[in-house]
Amino acid sequence: MLVVEHIHEMQKWSEEQRLQGRRIVLVPTMGFLHQGHLSLIREGRKSGDRLVVSVFVNPTQFGPCEDIASYPSDFERDRGLLEREEVDIIFRPSSRAVYPEGYQTAVEVERLGRTLCGAYRPGHFRGVAVVVLKLFNIVQPHVAVFGLKDYQQFIIVSRLIEDLNLNINMVAVPIVRDPDGLAVSSRNYYLTQEERKAALCLQRALGRAENWVRQGERDGRKITNQVIAEITSEPLARVEYVQLCDLKSLEVIESLHDEALLALAVWFGKARLIDNIILKAEM
Amino acid sequence: MLVVEHIHEMQKWSEEQRLQGRRIVLVPTMGFLHQGHLSLIREGRKSGDRLVVSVFVNPTQFGPCEDIASYPSDFERDRGLLEREEVDIIFRPSSRAVYPEGYQTAVEVERLGRTLCGAYRPGHFRGVAVVVLKLFNIVQPHVAVFGLKDYQQFIIVSRLIEDLNLNINMVAVPIVRDPDGLAVSSRNYYLTQEERKAALCLQRALGRAENWVRQGERDGRKITNQVIAEITSEPLARVEYVQLCDLKSLEVIESLHDEALLALAVWFGKARLIDNIILKAEM
Repeated sequence: MLVVEHIHEMQKWSEEQRLQGRRIVLVPTMGFLHQGHLSLIREGRKSGDRLVVSVFVNPTQFGPCEDIASYPSDFERDRGLLEREEVDIIFRPSSRAVYPEGYQTAVEVERLGRTLCGAYRPGHFRGVAVVVLKLFNIVQPHVAVFGLKDYQQFIIVSRLIEDLNLNINMVAVPIVRDPDGLAVSSRNYYLTQEERKAALCLQRALGRAENWVRQGERDGRKITNQVIAEITSEPLARVEYVQLCDLKSLEVIESLHDEALLALAVWFGKARLIDNIILKAEM
Repeated sequence: MLVVEHIHEMQKWSEEQRLQGRRIVLVPTMGFLHQGHLSLIREGRKSGDRLVVSVFVNPTQFGPCEDIASYPSDFERDRGLLEREEVDIIFRPSSRAVYPEGYQTAVEVERLGRTLCGAYRPGHFRGVAVVVLKLFNIVQPHVAVFGLKDYQQFIIVSRLIEDLNLNINMVAVPIVRDPDGLAVSSRNYYLTQEERKAALCLQRALGRAENWVRQGERDGRKITNQVIAEITSEPLARVEYVQLCDLKSLEVIESLHDEALLALAVWFGKARLIDNIILKAEM
């Protein structure tokens, strides 16, 4: 396993692999790896010949009130985990190299980036779009692997690929949950023991929504209101949004017909957690 | 010579060429080819193994008050010219294929795109950035050829390549002028005979600026004011801007030290003409 820090070195390696007809898979991460990442990496391993995992805490996707400095990291631990997964390359550029002086190019997937999390984290998905596009241009993957916990991110990157004619296949990996049901996330690290216990209400509320739909509920507002009521019965939870929306356009759905995404963002103390479920009318 | 209309076909061809180790050169055009284009194409011919010329009148770089419908075109003539230049591929996608329903990704080189022409054609360079990036992703060139008449466009695309880590070499080709001195442009087509004669004041004014600098003038405002006076002595000319600016940042220069760009946009009837010259303090 190689650790590559220089952009040109990474680019050169990828070009050589491509010339040899090898299929490159990229799993982009911000490090501090957990079971969710490992599931992306194992899926990635199956999707091509060479596996690149990028580890880059992207400053442009953090808002002015979001503290990038406190984002958890432990590179030696990450390196050990990736070694065991037989990753070929860890690509780990510096912020200075990714955004050199004079940098001024903005990339935005406009409508998709302004709804759901985008409405509460202005600029976040612009940061995501630009860094993902840069990573694609540097690593030149045939396949890119993203997790469905960040469902909106997955849809935005898919749209970016289509809109900019990138020849990259997206692989989507289901949400990984801890045994207690909490979706695995680097942000769980910020939870106190008490908050973590409280946060189990998210998975519980999503599960109940699934049940209501199974019992015939189709009204989007009723479903989201019931989910909000379920979550706010937990005193430590502060709901940011709960929304039922179209799987592709992410537009709000008033009445469930076939399938829809039920997505939420809820704060527990300093941690902003997101989770989602796909609800199907025929279950 | 092949004429390719489908994006996937173009992409597949390029990938095969790359796998064979061939170097691809792209010359992007909006068609209605003239001597300026031919000079790009001949330069392109020398810069790689396979030469692709795209012909696409990009709707997103026309403003709401700019009439794309009247943009001149003559594909059969273009095809004949390109055949004679031994171009390998004419890539000629439809607008619908380039911007399908649901398209929503914006790309902007921010500061560079808002000065000079960008200040008068809001959105123009966003349109340029996005179409050039799409063409790069489709044609996957090693080398891209641009003309220095559109100096600002050349700088913006160079910045786009750097900022997004595209592995593409830019080749810059000097302005081509008709025997009377007028810079060759598709927009000259809109000029009446009288306007065309009047438009010669542009090259004359730029030449005078060069002389003033040779005689020791270094004051940016004096140089641009003299150029404006020279041009407005021609009654058919309506000056949009005349600016002395830094060769890379395009920021206004107050005092000429080593080199600077003197750029202008001037209307004659329905035609908006641009021209420029690089002024050197040591000449």
